[in-house]
Amino acid sequence: MKQQVRDLTTVYATLSLAVGLCFCGTPAVAAEDPNQELVQISTINALISGIYEGDTTIGELLELGSFGIGTINNLDGEMVALDGQAYQVTSTGSINVLPKSAKTPFASVTHFHADTTTAGVSTDTMEELQELIDRGLPSENLFYAVRITGTFPSMKVRSVTRQEPPYRRLTEVVKEQSLFSFSNTSGTLVGFRCPEYVQGVNVANYHLHYLSADKKQGGHVLGFELEDGTVQVDTLPNFRLLLPDSGAFMKTDLSEKNEDAIHAVEKLRAPTQ
Amino acid sequence: MKQQVRDLTTVYATLSLAVGLCFCGTPAVAAEDPNQELVQISTINALISGIYEGDTTIGELLELGSFGIGTINNLDGEMVALDGQAYQVTSTGSINVLPKSAKTPFASVTHFHADTTTAGVSTDTMEELQELIDRGLPSENLFYAVRITGTFPSMKVRSVTRQEPPYRRLTEVVKEQSLFSFSNTSGTLVGFRCPEYVQGVNVANYHLHYLSADKKQGGHVLGFELEDGTVQVDTLPNFRLLLPDSGAFMKTDLSEKNEDAIHAVEKLRAPTQ
Repeated sequence: MKQQVRDLTTVYATLSLAVGLCFCGTPAVAAEDPNQELVQISTINALISGIYEGDTTIGELLELGSFGIGTINNLDGEMVALDGQAYQVTSTGSINVLPKSAKTPFASVTHFHADTTTAGVSTDTMEELQELIDRGLPSENLFYAVRITGTFPSMKVRSVTRQEPPYRRLTEVVKEQSLFSFSNTSGTLVGFRCPEYVQGVNVANYHLHYLSADKKQGGHVLGFELEDGTVQVDTLPNFRLLLPDSGAFMKTDLSEKNEDAIHAVEKLRAPTQ
Repeated sequence: MKQQVRDLTTVYATLSLAVGLCFCGTPAVAAEDPNQELVQISTINALISGIYEGDTTIGELLELGSFGIGTINNLDGEMVALDGQAYQVTSTGSINVLPKSAKTPFASVTHFHADTTTAGVSTDTMEELQELIDRGLPSENLFYAVRITGTFPSMKVRSVTRQEPPYRRLTEVVKEQSLFSFSNTSGTLVGFRCPEYVQGVNVANYHLHYLSADKKQGGHVLGFELEDGTVQVDTLPNFRLLLPDSGAFMKTDLSEKNEDAIHAVEKLRAPTQ
């Protein structure tokens, strides 16, 4: 278990020590955040149902939020938006800067402004980090954007393979997902924590993508170790859902809860190594 | 069964005749609708949990949308917003114009711009009308605002009694609701149809309030007969959720689905007369 205690002034530190973790550092930093909203294109249920084509361009998406995650039309890999640039992580693991003309069927973005910044965070697992962040949140009922920079002694990610119609459900496609494991990679985790009550609309709880600092590694995150990370949280009490008003979305039965499917699609673990 | 067929040119008319209803009239009218969004304050799950106080003023709400439904702080009756004015239907049945300083813990509004207008609609029940509207919708997966003006040979509504803390759950409070039956009343049904997948966030399917033309009758709608109504539907592919970021909302467990509670609270029938 790592211990890198620099500063015991925050409540995080006290909580962290109590559970044997380290989550300590600088006091909360308030920043201007006029939007305070997560903007979402389509729904996770629609994506799970195989709706892999949307009309929203990456250019439009980045106007709505310069920070976020999603996928690209034809389910052509994982998407990470960071500092106003959108990146595609293909199923081979290569990373491309997405042109503004590329389109997305499902994405979540915000204009990230950290409400809290905590440095010197180390955890052995993704779940430990999520529990640690949870303890510092003002409520489980709001939306949060999370941005975590640091060194990751291990990082497990996946990407998905470009699909062609007729599309299979995402639960089928992810059985063929590409898994990647990186060691001692430095970069940024980009993602959101959504409240339980929007399960099916978005992914309840955490959904994180990764992009290395050199923009050569990334994907949908399955697990990691974090060393000396800086955790930033942006509280988003507002949520804006932009739905497709044409195409397959209109005719698909989205009334199923899909809880098991969402879990299968989002949380599938990399094989033990 | 009423039959007031004026015009057989629309698909609605054909569908209506097929089921013995009348839903016919003018062709669809497109209108400018730059927002195309339902804006919602808090969630129905929060209201059901007894969160009856919010910080949003009626003045702020009407800026977000001049048409809609909800309630007032302390659950002090049913709220109807129509043409930029918000009305309170108290538990005694009296109707007050709400001052802009009044606050709401839960509301749904839009700036209504009809995408379709259909005149000459008569149905024997609320459910028949809803089924009829459903058949004309482009998708079950979008949000819709509905505005129905006409004469109602019968109209059954309810209102709720002002509450004081500590608040009981809405399922308890509605057991003491006030029921009102009106005959041959003319006025406007105001409400929304939300997709099944937001059950718990809002009310899945229809949620309608009523306000008579003379502003003397109204409430949360439980049932009606409609005669020679004009049905307007505004398709809303966008949904904006504005959550409280202080107070009881922050600490309440909102993870329950509450499907039965929502049904009990929204659909409770007036006693057979």
